[in-house]
Amino acid sequence: MQWTKVLGLGLGAAALLGLGIILGHFAIPKKANSPAPSVSAPQDLDLEILETIMGQLDAHRIRENLRELSREPHLASSPRDEDLVQLLLQRWKDPESGLDSAEAFTYEVLLSFPSQEQPNVVDIAMTLPPPPTVGPTGDIIHSCHRTEENVTGEQGGPDVVQPYAAYAPSGTPQGLLVYANRGTEEDFKELQTQGIKLEGTIALTRYGGVGRGAKAVNAAKHGVAGVLVYTDPADINDGLSLPNETFPNSWYLPPSGVERGSYYKYFGDPLTPYLPAIPSSFRLDPANVSGFPPIPTQPIGFQDARDLLCNLNGTLAPDTWQGALGCHYRLGPGFRPDGDFSADSQVNVSIYNRLELRNSSNVLGIIRGAVEPDRYVLYGNHRDSWVHGAVDPSSGTAVLLELSRVLGTLLKKGTWRPRRSIVFASWGAEEFGLIGSTEFTEEFFNKLQERTVAYINVDIAVFANATLRVQGTPPVQSVVFSATKEIRSPGPGDLSIYDNWIRYFNRSSPVYGLVPSLGSLGAGSDYAPFIHFLGISSMDIAYTYDRSKTSARIYPTYHTAFDTFDYVDKFLDPGFSSHQAVARTAGSIILRLSDSFFLPLKVSDYSETLRSFLQAAQQDLGALLEQHSISLGQPRVSKGSGPLKVRMLNDQLMLLERTFLNPRAFPEERYYSHVLWATRTGSVATFPGLSNACSRARDTASGSEAWAEVQRQLSIVVTALEGAAATLRPVGDL
Amino acid sequence: MQWTKVLGLGLGAAALLGLGIILGHFAIPKKANSPAPSVSAPQDLDLEILETIMGQLDAHRIRENLRELSREPHLASSPRDEDLVQLLLQRWKDPESGLDSAEAFTYEVLLSFPSQEQPNVVDIAMTLPPPPTVGPTGDIIHSCHRTEENVTGEQGGPDVVQPYAAYAPSGTPQGLLVYANRGTEEDFKELQTQGIKLEGTIALTRYGGVGRGAKAVNAAKHGVAGVLVYTDPADINDGLSLPNETFPNSWYLPPSGVERGSYYKYFGDPLTPYLPAIPSSFRLDPANVSGFPPIPTQPIGFQDARDLLCNLNGTLAPDTWQGALGCHYRLGPGFRPDGDFSADSQVNVSIYNRLELRNSSNVLGIIRGAVEPDRYVLYGNHRDSWVHGAVDPSSGTAVLLELSRVLGTLLKKGTWRPRRSIVFASWGAEEFGLIGSTEFTEEFFNKLQERTVAYINVDIAVFANATLRVQGTPPVQSVVFSATKEIRSPGPGDLSIYDNWIRYFNRSSPVYGLVPSLGSLGAGSDYAPFIHFLGISSMDIAYTYDRSKTSARIYPTYHTAFDTFDYVDKFLDPGFSSHQAVARTAGSIILRLSDSFFLPLKVSDYSETLRSFLQAAQQDLGALLEQHSISLGQPRVSKGSGPLKVRMLNDQLMLLERTFLNPRAFPEERYYSHVLWATRTGSVATFPGLSNACSRARDTASGSEAWAEVQRQLSIVVTALEGAAATLRPVGDL
Repeated sequence: MQWTKVLGLGLGAAALLGLGIILGHFAIPKKANSPAPSVSAPQDLDLEILETIMGQLDAHRIRENLRELSREPHLASSPRDEDLVQLLLQRWKDPESGLDSAEAFTYEVLLSFPSQEQPNVVDIAMTLPPPPTVGPTGDIIHSCHRTEENVTGEQGGPDVVQPYAAYAPSGTPQGLLVYANRGTEEDFKELQTQGIKLEGTIALTRYGGVGRGAKAVNAAKHGVAGVLVYTDPADINDGLSLPNETFPNSWYLPPSGVERGSYYKYFGDPLTPYLPAIPSSFRLDPANVSGFPPIPTQPIGFQDARDLLCNLNGTLAPDTWQGALGCHYRLGPGFRPDGDFSADSQVNVSIYNRLELRNSSNVLGIIRGAVEPDRYVLYGNHRDSWVHGAVDPSSGTAVLLELSRVLGTLLKKGTWRPRRSIVFASWGAEEFGLIGSTEFTEEFFNKLQERTVAYINVDIAVFANATLRVQGTPPVQSVVFSATKEIRSPGPGDLSIYDNWIRYFNRSSPVYGLVPSLGSLGAGSDYAPFIHFLGISSMDIAYTYDRSKTSARIYPTYHTAFDTFDYVDKFLDPGFSSHQAVARTAGSIILRLSDSFFLPLKVSDYSETLRSFLQAAQQDLGALLEQHSISLGQPRVSKGSGPLKVRMLNDQLMLLERTFLNPRAFPEERYYSHVLWATRTGSVATFPGLSNACSRARDTASGSEAWAEVQRQLSIVVTALEGAAATLRPVGDL
Repeated sequence: MQWTKVLGLGLGAAALLGLGIILGHFAIPKKANSPAPSVSAPQDLDLEILETIMGQLDAHRIRENLRELSREPHLASSPRDEDLVQLLLQRWKDPESGLDSAEAFTYEVLLSFPSQEQPNVVDIAMTLPPPPTVGPTGDIIHSCHRTEENVTGEQGGPDVVQPYAAYAPSGTPQGLLVYANRGTEEDFKELQTQGIKLEGTIALTRYGGVGRGAKAVNAAKHGVAGVLVYTDPADINDGLSLPNETFPNSWYLPPSGVERGSYYKYFGDPLTPYLPAIPSSFRLDPANVSGFPPIPTQPIGFQDARDLLCNLNGTLAPDTWQGALGCHYRLGPGFRPDGDFSADSQVNVSIYNRLELRNSSNVLGIIRGAVEPDRYVLYGNHRDSWVHGAVDPSSGTAVLLELSRVLGTLLKKGTWRPRRSIVFASWGAEEFGLIGSTEFTEEFFNKLQERTVAYINVDIAVFANATLRVQGTPPVQSVVFSATKEIRSPGPGDLSIYDNWIRYFNRSSPVYGLVPSLGSLGAGSDYAPFIHFLGISSMDIAYTYDRSKTSARIYPTYHTAFDTFDYVDKFLDPGFSSHQAVARTAGSIILRLSDSFFLPLKVSDYSETLRSFLQAAQQDLGALLEQHSISLGQPRVSKGSGPLKVRMLNDQLMLLERTFLNPRAFPEERYYSHVLWATRTGSVATFPGLSNACSRARDTASGSEAWAEVQRQLSIVVTALEGAAATLRPVGDL
């Protein structure tokens, strides 16, 4: 292989061609040409069964599932969350439509809640108290709303958790207000450049641009005492903000809506990194946990944000910082003398969040494989929501239940049993940081890593009803394409899901021509521990927006008390045909992965990604690397391919993704071990370890430790690629 | 499973019983009862072929192999080492008796050599120079030998490398001599207690008690300037030290013999930890490498050590520090006024070692499996020696060549092809720290980890001709027993190797009664990266001493220029019947592992080890843990077993060892990742991470970070054991 020469900036096209040839050997052999020599009567994908399943996946039943699942708020570890555990167990143990077995696995995990007795408050107080002061003082002249407006009768009651920033510390900072745009590092630097004294202020930021918790981290570096976060109508409502323009009159977020969320930096239970949160496990002292926001933080609605922001004093904010609240955004600090509040008014933020150890369960159900029960096709979604969570996550759970019903019914009737095992999972406490799924991967690390064929995630099944959207690693592209070409798209016309999809997201592939474009997997849902920690080929499936019709950063009622059954039923997917489309897509993929004789994972599709990573490295980092004398010699030369037998081929396919794992590559990134898909801070779309190391080294001298780390990261990539090539060579070769 | 309760010091017997039952399910199923359902005409172990192989392994041919291999010194990366690479390739590519394919894999690694132009010297100089001084000064009144005495004509010539401490730094310290016994931490503390000023001295130490490099590390902590190391006749020669009592008149070490060796703390190429030392790989700056001795160090013979030690001044050394040099050992510092040297004489140590990047090759040869070519039985030994290395390692290589000849001949005749692949390996640069094998595991990490059934190491095949000695992890015990029961022991009588073995090393097993006792694997040879880094079940096989006849810490000419063909032929194994016994044992094991339908790895044999680890934890650490309030709740309960199919069973067997790997358990221990077999500093024979953490925590208060680490290590053990249990449960269960 010529990788390293390319990486080390020798040549380009010839080497890339070589790569293509090696990976090209790994196209799936045609069945007719390669019968399995030692397995009699191989069970293969049965197109009749597939058609039966597609026909039985019922939009109406998905709707009824959703109605039941989203009937009550079901925050992680709440009584209603526990009720849903029982509901899942009951469905999966049903004698007519259940699975072979089902079980709940409970973990004791650290969650964060607002106090019921002492709600979090954000006030404006008139008088600046004489320093030093303790606690909020001064006459309250304005209070932000503590709850969302009860517009449909579902936004009230004790089970609707007050909007809060989970894991943000308690505290009662007070100070002059500043506006800090999205709270990125650059945003705070800009404020500094503008000469604004940030020490002791309260920073108002809007969602987007950077992770929730990062806003507080960035703010605290500048001495900011507290952070408020709101959702700007420009970012979520296509600019609309009036009550009659928003839910329940449209799908847009009402003025009082507040996005809740986890502000923890990592994922998994914060007290038990790398260990399952079973009762006996060692737990960190919460005081020693890193990754919680350093200062009190509270999310508010844009109605309250308008009151604050439109009264700010100071310089006009830059154009890109302006939003749709109907006024010119200024930077502060403090309020303008001619506004609603006096110029010396300050903002008091009183946060009373507390950490609690709570029980949270995963529910696992299995259909045992007939031929290879030790190969698992894993399909999952989380169960916990912030409030009713009709979209997030119940739309996915409604699909999960319909899929397990249809497959379970065939199973119980004796009509069908898959070749490999199918495992269904309902994860707990995802909203607090993918906790249930992460603890599961920690508890069964080796078993899952050795046996899991692929992980399929359907969290929010339907964001909007325009088109399919799939994120995944390259080996899953082919099975997604095969499945979606055979399913009719919802809506008018007679397009397949595939043909509809290609109209919205597409790219030009050197191998296939114009194809739908798969996104890459971040850490936004429960696939994260599977791809990053275990190295299992993963995908996330949903129906989503027509971007020509909305620029909303996510569906508008996300993580608010307005994410209800009626919201879905009236605005997101009336008729539930998009839900059905997702169920059919996922069902077809599950069946193909579990029943195909040859695993439909196409490792050769990694070549395009690697090619683009290499080109990016060359184009964007090449000159820089050369400048610091980083280049590499000629590595070993790979050899050609030969005849392969079915099981070895399948093992090679399944394990290719694992060869990219290196737990020693970037240990500071916690679970991230995949040398292609770890988090990337640099702007160059290439190998993340290399990209990050280059970003850090950029301003240091050649020969610095930072440049040594660049070289080490380069070697890690080369070793992983060579290891992948070794895994793909004929198994009996050296 | 009741593990954690036991670990957390609840109860004992009941829980241990539970463990026994779980592991007990994993006895190998009888073939008659469990035919493989989906594989037609399964290839199984053929006893006729086994007998043929046993009969063809020829003592005379092993002797001729050894004569050729040990004809010249073949230090790693020397021209003769390269010649032997060619010899191996030629043998393994022989059309009549070769393997399917063979290939050399070369790495560029950091070795350490003495200077040929400027030899290392150890002198006694009369006058103490006035400080500050640079370099050795004063009149030389005595010089230690720079080479060994040429007693057989083989100890001279340019290819015999001067005795030296590989990786010890260059430097010219001079100072008063002190005697520091074995150079352990306790030894230097004892000298301190005795009031001896160590700053600036040269410490004379004897081999044993602690690793080579550790002596210099311990010494440097006390300000010692240089270290000498010798082999005491009490430790190596059963007290004998006269020329007429030693080689070539007996197997004992001549007075001029010097043990060479690597003084590097870790294993693998020092510049490329975790990365293969291919040319393109990132290399550390040698100045930043940790693990080299901190001060100049030189090994000397006991003839020279006698001159130094028997002239020392000062207090009489403790009884346990005395040896067999024929005088009372004193502590120093400095020489006594009435001895051979004046009282103010000092020792000048001048070391000119240098680090060099050199090419070193592994040679790999393969017999492709007929049914499961993607399962590898790996058999290896290193090729490089310090001088002629007839025993170390050529006795093992002579056996390796005979084994590959016999199997290769059957292969080429078309008589036989194994079910699984057999891979033969000749590793390079083992003597410098298991470098070739470690680089190999780094380059092919994932592929080897996924596919390797077991690793068999035969380094020194014959230390002495009394009995078999096997070190290994519990799953290999059973196949070693099966093999050795069927082979006749060399020597008088009609005992099997097994029955002879049990006379020398035995233990009482609760399951089997009296059985031979397997040792555990440290890091003494090339098995180390396989068991510790990859988690592959491993074993090391040799013939060894009758301990009632010798107390030598190893065969006496170990790592000296006296380890020659005649030494083996005359003293160690005249007739080569012990070599033949090792070849037959290894051959039978290879055949059983590669040809048996069910892998003959008996995971249930782990239960005795785990039981003893648990008992040790309970007995020796229990009170301590309780004192610091460390206990655990009730973990999940494991379930029963069910019917299993052949491939899943075999995969479970193969992968069980892997479930004990945790690369995040003790990252400071470099490659060590196996939670049962990592290095252990504490004296309690139990889980090493737990034991080490307890040692460190012992003197700290409850609630300290050290006690938190004890709890973390306990959780790591519990998670690994639960993971192992999960792997052993029926594959279609949750």
